[in-house]
Amino acid sequence: MTSIAFNHATVRDQADMVTFLRLCAERGLNTVSIWGDEIAKVGEENALRALCDHRMNVLGYNRIGPFVPEYLDRAEAELQRAARFGADHVSLFTGGLTKGHRDLYSARRRAEDMIAGLLNVARRIGVKLAIEPLHPMLVGDRTVIGSLTHANDLCEALGSGIGVIVDVYHVWWDERLETEILRAGQAGRLFGFHVNDWLVPTRHVLTDRGMMGDGIIDLAAIERMMRRAGFEGPIEVEIFSADWWARDPADVLDVALARCQHLFGRDIAI
Amino acid sequence: MTSIAFNHATVRDQADMVTFLRLCAERGLNTVSIWGDEIAKVGEENALRALCDHRMNVLGYNRIGPFVPEYLDRAEAELQRAARFGADHVSLFTGGLTKGHRDLYSARRRAEDMIAGLLNVARRIGVKLAIEPLHPMLVGDRTVIGSLTHANDLCEALGSGIGVIVDVYHVWWDERLETEILRAGQAGRLFGFHVNDWLVPTRHVLTDRGMMGDGIIDLAAIERMMRRAGFEGPIEVEIFSADWWARDPADVLDVALARCQHLFGRDIAI
Repeated sequence: MTSIAFNHATVRDQADMVTFLRLCAERGLNTVSIWGDEIAKVGEENALRALCDHRMNVLGYNRIGPFVPEYLDRAEAELQRAARFGADHVSLFTGGLTKGHRDLYSARRRAEDMIAGLLNVARRIGVKLAIEPLHPMLVGDRTVIGSLTHANDLCEALGSGIGVIVDVYHVWWDERLETEILRAGQAGRLFGFHVNDWLVPTRHVLTDRGMMGDGIIDLAAIERMMRRAGFEGPIEVEIFSADWWARDPADVLDVALARCQHLFGRDIAI
Repeated sequence: MTSIAFNHATVRDQADMVTFLRLCAERGLNTVSIWGDEIAKVGEENALRALCDHRMNVLGYNRIGPFVPEYLDRAEAELQRAARFGADHVSLFTGGLTKGHRDLYSARRRAEDMIAGLLNVARRIGVKLAIEPLHPMLVGDRTVIGSLTHANDLCEALGSGIGVIVDVYHVWWDERLETEILRAGQAGRLFGFHVNDWLVPTRHVLTDRGMMGDGIIDLAAIERMMRRAGFEGPIEVEIFSADWWARDPADVLDVALARCQHLFGRDIAI
């Protein structure tokens, strides 16, 4: 049976991590994705206790990156914290081009080298790394990995302990989508499936993602691709939206759950 | 020797077609790309006379599309007008998903069928068709062709008389860029090369393109890819920007020419 998980980012403006966990638990959910900076806000001890009290499992831990030199020193500590929280996988965030530079090819090779180095640390600690390719409109500014193909190529070159997150927002437009989902699935690399929607018009490249059903992504079709590729994990709701951040967090969760029921069918555990 | 051409869209808000042609001629240019709706504003006879008076050649004619049923009836007339203006190629603009529909796969197949039909008409009239893949952030809303790979695949399936326009704004992020430019070049399908820049931050998905040099695209590197692939045509400046539309058109042309000289070298004919 498919289950639903929420990413804390969906309600981050008005619900701290402890509140977020309580709201999820009240709705019968047992899986969440969390953020390092939100743990810091409530304190690690409080965050761990709330997780335990609510018997909540951690799916994704956000995040390692952006890959600036001073950050890499902290990456090991971040991976160890993810392990303490029992995260299934840790999201990578490469960051974009260095300010004043335009050589995307070299930036990609540097990011790949950094990921290879991080993977060695992650394997030692025992956590999995997840590459989430971002939408091409975020290439250069926020990432250098803008397609599932690039992420899959990199995973294949690196071996075990690394996989991909398929976020519909970033990849829905790609004519290679079904092929690349299948390829990741066959390699056992489908670690996460994030849902939201693409609004028309899109007013902001970062904070105008839609609630499932309000945009033009064929979400049910992409979910079927994931299942055919062998993905058995939860559907994770992650919506970066100034509009939804302004609403009552409990209402946001309720609307999202209703939309998931409608889009993905009745055999969903919530 | 490389030459520079302007697309009328760059100064469309403050210069009608006759003014635009005069401004280009005053700067020693001999090639422009034009728009059907701008011809209609000044009248076809005036537009043709101004072209003749200034000894100006037409590179691109914009455009066929979006592919709504009522538009297809007009496509033949549009292609004939492009032929009267001596255009080297006519840009295709597929449009996005039909309102209320989300099936991108079927929309792509429909657009491909329509392009095949248009190509038969274009061959009879004697004009070439050009597919300009748009940025993935415009897929669904403005187009269903969001990569050079898709455009090249389609061209290969269709045969002669159809090629691609490489607009840096739409394709610069793509890890397949060099491969796909080379592929188009080897097939003799590189019909156009549009330059502008990607701004960080990008404030609007349609009207915030940058002047060359103000963003993060490695324009010189992409121009070298085009030349290595055998492209010998002009560098076409096409900037959709509310900021630049608000400036004096003559100044916009002068700034753009200076930027091209700086970025693409001294062997440029202007």
